[in-house]
Amino acid sequence: MSITFYYAPMSTSSITEAVLAELGTPCERVKLDISAGDTRKPDFLKVNPNGRVPAIVHEGTPIWESSAITMYLGEVFGVESKLYPEPGPKRGEAMKWIAWSNVTLAEAAGRLSASLPTSSEGAVQSNSLDWVSPEQRSASAVEKAKADLAVCLRILDSGLEGKSFLLGDYSLVDTHLQGFVGWIGTMEVDLTPFPNVTGWLQRCSERPAIAKLMEAEVENET
Amino acid sequence: MSITFYYAPMSTSSITEAVLAELGTPCERVKLDISAGDTRKPDFLKVNPNGRVPAIVHEGTPIWESSAITMYLGEVFGVESKLYPEPGPKRGEAMKWIAWSNVTLAEAAGRLSASLPTSSEGAVQSNSLDWVSPEQRSASAVEKAKADLAVCLRILDSGLEGKSFLLGDYSLVDTHLQGFVGWIGTMEVDLTPFPNVTGWLQRCSERPAIAKLMEAEVENET
Ligand SMILES: N[C@@H](CCC(=O)N[C@@H](CS)C(=O)NCC(=O)O)C(=O)O
Ligand SMILES: N[C@@H](CCC(=O)N[C@@H](CS)C(=O)NCC(=O)O)C(=O)O
Repeated sequence: MSITFYYAPMSTSSITEAVLAELGTPCERVKLDISAGDTRKPDFLKVNPNGRVPAIVHEGTPIWESSAITMYLGEVFGVESKLYPEPGPKRGEAMKWIAWSNVTLAEAAGRLSASLPTSSEGAVQSNSLDWVSPEQRSASAVEKAKADLAVCLRILDSGLEGKSFLLGDYSLVDTHLQGFVGWIGTMEVDLTPFPNVTGWLQRCSERPAIAKLMEAEVENET
Repeated sequence: MSITFYYAPMSTSSITEAVLAELGTPCERVKLDISAGDTRKPDFLKVNPNGRVPAIVHEGTPIWESSAITMYLGEVFGVESKLYPEPGPKRGEAMKWIAWSNVTLAEAAGRLSASLPTSSEGAVQSNSLDWVSPEQRSASAVEKAKADLAVCLRILDSGLEGKSFLLGDYSLVDTHLQGFVGWIGTMEVDLTPFPNVTGWLQRCSERPAIAKLMEAEVENET
């Protein structure tokens, strides 16, 4: 039953943090300092050879990649509380949105983050976002990434048409995606052309578990 | 029970093709011609607004993103035949490798594919691999992508240490990952420093379902 959760403040692991908060699943927390190199130390590399957070260990098994972690925690701990669908097509829908956010949406967002002239503003803490060489931090790369993000945000906006949340009722799919979209909103991306997205972000931020985490984050920063 | 499978030859959908072949799940097949623009036609955009293959529709529900599709087909059709783990930590391990291949491994591989001077060699057919502007097809971007891929391949190599397949016995995790690694092997990437990976690729290619698909692909090309 035991879960260990490896995290760093203001990183992708905030998504797992929100998922665990929604589920109310108890866990042992291990805080890592990315800038101090904690994610690249041998002990952590045994848990996640990629040297990245989030990672969890459940019953001795290390699981990494935030999308896999959300789906896993969802199916193990979230079905009874209806935060994650039972097996079947509805679960397939959940998996498709979660996978999409990490593969397609996050790829475009990561590219934007890496291409912006200074990646301090809204940047996720990472040793691995440095793959764009200085000469590649070009206006054209920024424009292309923004255009790709707009395509993604339009898809999300359509997915939310006529619905309060992605699967209808609130689920871990929303918990997961609001984390990414919230991050995107801190970069030079205008969300106003996507009213379903902004309305949904607002509704997500009113979830007690998420509101509490946001408050804690603001306090830590000041 | 009905599955419709949207695919294009020599694309990411080959992974789903292999998964369906291993499962022996019957489906209706819809072949799309990417270069003719089929993936961007309104009818297909209703199935996958991203305009990409693979996509499936199961019991009326569209599911996209190859990683989500493999996990979904695995849990619905693969548990009894032991091609996919039952719920629990072992399934978490399956999810972690499948998610990792599409998020971390495929990101580095896509970057290499997009940065190579000509993306004809080993390139996946796509309208969406054109995000690197000509001036960015630089030697330094190629080198960085190759270095990141080497890190990924080392992680995979370690994951295979002392094992025939990623979860021990053959599973859809191997079906899924061999597709990506096989593609990577067609680019300028030397796999010989990763003997566990090359041995595993060889074992995967001996699976009757995969061998048959590879044969069909060679025939189609000539
Ligand atoms: N694909 C991974 C990405 C995780 C990731 O990029 N984590 C960053 C923080 S946002 C990290 O741990 N970086 C530490 C490092 O690179 O050493 C996921 O979704 O879990
Ligand atoms: N993240 C997607 C990527 C799929 C993808 O890139 N598909 C390409 C072929 S390899 C495609 O359909 N391209 C058609 C287009 O861009 O119009 C997945 O894993 O399913």
